[in-house]
Amino acid sequence: MKICYKFWLENEKGKAFGDGPFDILNRIEKTGSLRQAALEIRMSYSQAWNLIRDLEKKLGYELLKRKVGGAEGGGSELTAEAISLQEKYNTFYRQVEEQINTIYQSVFKEK
Amino acid sequence: MKICYKFWLENEKGKAFGDGPFDILNRIEKTGSLRQAALEIRMSYSQAWNLIRDLEKKLGYELLKRKVGGAEGGGSELTAEAISLQEKYNTFYRQVEEQINTIYQSVFKEK
Repeated sequence: MKICYKFWLENEKGKAFGDGPFDILNRIEKTGSLRQAALEIRMSYSQAWNLIRDLEKKLGYELLKRKVGGAEGGGSELTAEAISLQEKYNTFYRQVEEQINTIYQSVFKEK
Repeated sequence: MKICYKFWLENEKGKAFGDGPFDILNRIEKTGSLRQAALEIRMSYSQAWNLIRDLEKKLGYELLKRKVGGAEGGGSELTAEAISLQEKYNTFYRQVEEQINTIYQSVFKEK
């Protein structure tokens, strides 16, 4: 038996952030491109773009800024707010995960 | 913004326990009747019975024992294993909930 869990952030506008959005932000950061990130998770560019737009509306700030020009003709990078959210979500997740496992062991596996 | 979460127990046979099953066990304990518990959550008796059977198969032990006779002509009560599971799940849930809220405050609401 193992314990499973799922987290997400929600406000009056609905679900505003969670594992899926966290994953796509990480991929945009790594690839420098929303198009490439979308491709990796088998999402169309317009779906990915709509997802980001929807999150931005719910969060109340922009997540992506457009890089103009350069050899690859632009791309996307994360705003400071997106990086901060990503870091906080990651810290939160790791700390909670550790606590969950500790509590699960102590409650369910005692003796 | 608020943090939302969901937990469940899973083994190689699939999802074995979670909030829904916890709720139905509580209602069976309170009402002394699977029929009554099912009614309260607008589930048919056969659906509730199948749910319990399915959980028992996954958990590997019985959750309900039949009370025979008496003025109401029987009913259901929880086995010792069901009570133990219910108590552990409740303890686990409360402890984790407290940690999640503490960590959420410290990570997302700092300063």
